[in-house]
Amino acid sequence: MNSTSRNQRTSLGIVGFGAFGQLAALHLGKHFELSAYDPSPGLAEVARKLGVTLAPLHTVSQADVILVAAPVSSFEQVVSEIAVACKPGALIVDVGSVKVIPSEIMRRLLPNCVDIVATHPLFGPQSAGTGIEGLKVVVCPIRGRRHARMAAFLRKALRLTVIVTTPEAHDKEAAVVQGLTHLIAKVLLRMGPLPTHMTTKSFDLLSEAISMVQHDAPEVFEAIEMANPYAETVRRRFFDLAAGLSVELDTASATPLLQERGH
Amino acid sequence: MNSTSRNQRTSLGIVGFGAFGQLAALHLGKHFELSAYDPSPGLAEVARKLGVTLAPLHTVSQADVILVAAPVSSFEQVVSEIAVACKPGALIVDVGSVKVIPSEIMRRLLPNCVDIVATHPLFGPQSAGTGIEGLKVVVCPIRGRRHARMAAFLRKALRLTVIVTTPEAHDKEAAVVQGLTHLIAKVLLRMGPLPTHMTTKSFDLLSEAISMVQHDAPEVFEAIEMANPYAETVRRRFFDLAAGLSVELDTASATPLLQERGH
Repeated sequence: MNSTSRNQRTSLGIVGFGAFGQLAALHLGKHFELSAYDPSPGLAEVARKLGVTLAPLHTVSQADVILVAAPVSSFEQVVSEIAVACKPGALIVDVGSVKVIPSEIMRRLLPNCVDIVATHPLFGPQSAGTGIEGLKVVVCPIRGRRHARMAAFLRKALRLTVIVTTPEAHDKEAAVVQGLTHLIAKVLLRMGPLPTHMTTKSFDLLSEAISMVQHDAPEVFEAIEMANPYAETVRRRFFDLAAGLSVELDTASATPLLQERGH
Repeated sequence: MNSTSRNQRTSLGIVGFGAFGQLAALHLGKHFELSAYDPSPGLAEVARKLGVTLAPLHTVSQADVILVAAPVSSFEQVVSEIAVACKPGALIVDVGSVKVIPSEIMRRLLPNCVDIVATHPLFGPQSAGTGIEGLKVVVCPIRGRRHARMAAFLRKALRLTVIVTTPEAHDKEAAVVQGLTHLIAKVLLRMGPLPTHMTTKSFDLLSEAISMVQHDAPEVFEAIEMANPYAETVRRRFFDLAAGLSVELDTASATPLLQERGH
């Protein structure tokens, strides 16, 4: 996947140059010739700093490797535009938080002459603050055989922990992992500013978990809750168990354990 | 509070020699002559290891300092027995997770000739695994002036971070800090074994928070949810916000963002 020749480096086009696309550029810049497309204005400065050439989607789609880092809401549209512009033999890789539906979209829309690998880096700009070594990335082979070489690159060049699995197995586990983290974070953030003074170690960990996801783009929450086919079941189970516990505690408070007597 | 003379060390009686009473003994043994009372059998070996003399409640209640580490359910009974046995000039200190109701009980039942300080060490055997230096303890002066000397001891001899406040201010903040941690832990533990494979950093933090409280005695959860006057309001708010989010997400799923089209 990576090129060692300085004369003709492998080109990598990033489609969607938001927070994650920029993080990818930061870590892939020394391995690839980077270009990026994003419909948002005002990205020239960050692109320059990261050594990335901004270009129209059609141009970026002609790279050897295309990294699709677009939000779920525009994913299908973007993939259909890549489909008509990409080179035979290209490798198309997505990086979204869900894998079943995007894999189906890529398989359906992209021509047979390209390879497809669906991935989910289990980190973002928050968790990659001190580097990405040892962080986890899920790799799902979708079409072609290049996933093995790619996994080796992720392991050796980026020092990531690679988990190879299917889109279904990924989404089942992600429905719990990401679904619960984001649900709990949303509820707690709505409770208002959390205490920071008389806190326990476990509450500090909880607060840290929340602070890591609270600045995620709304699209991430939407993808996790709406575009993961297993998310609704997990969510319902969480809310049902919460409601059950609420009833139990109300019943128990009706016969208090310890009451202040009048004095 | 601590004695420097080896000939006549200050005596400290621990009433309730469970997980927290034992942790206290571990850290207070070099500063005090320790005795302990607990109604449970089978504590002789751990007492011997910690250099603690097991004795009846009446005897333990004659120490210079009495540390009440009994569960909320037996707190009032235990304090009333200490009240008839304690020495004039003794210092009575509790260590429970709630402060308003226990402080009222101690103020009401203990004779005027003893000093009272209500405390809440914001840690337990789980979080004190690698030592207690830098951990937090809340100190609420209830009767007498010895809280200042005690706070200095906790700071200097035990290297704890001391937060001096009122029982009301403590319980208001603890209702959020401990109330939410334990509620979330209970709900997640009921969901079954949590994933450990394709996990994110934030989910790992959440899992760690839960694992820290999951082995807490049931009495701790009861105290936090039932004996804290502010817990019910926090709990209701959490469950209401969760229910609201559930409705929002169900409404949003009715008009899906991203749907797999037939192919």
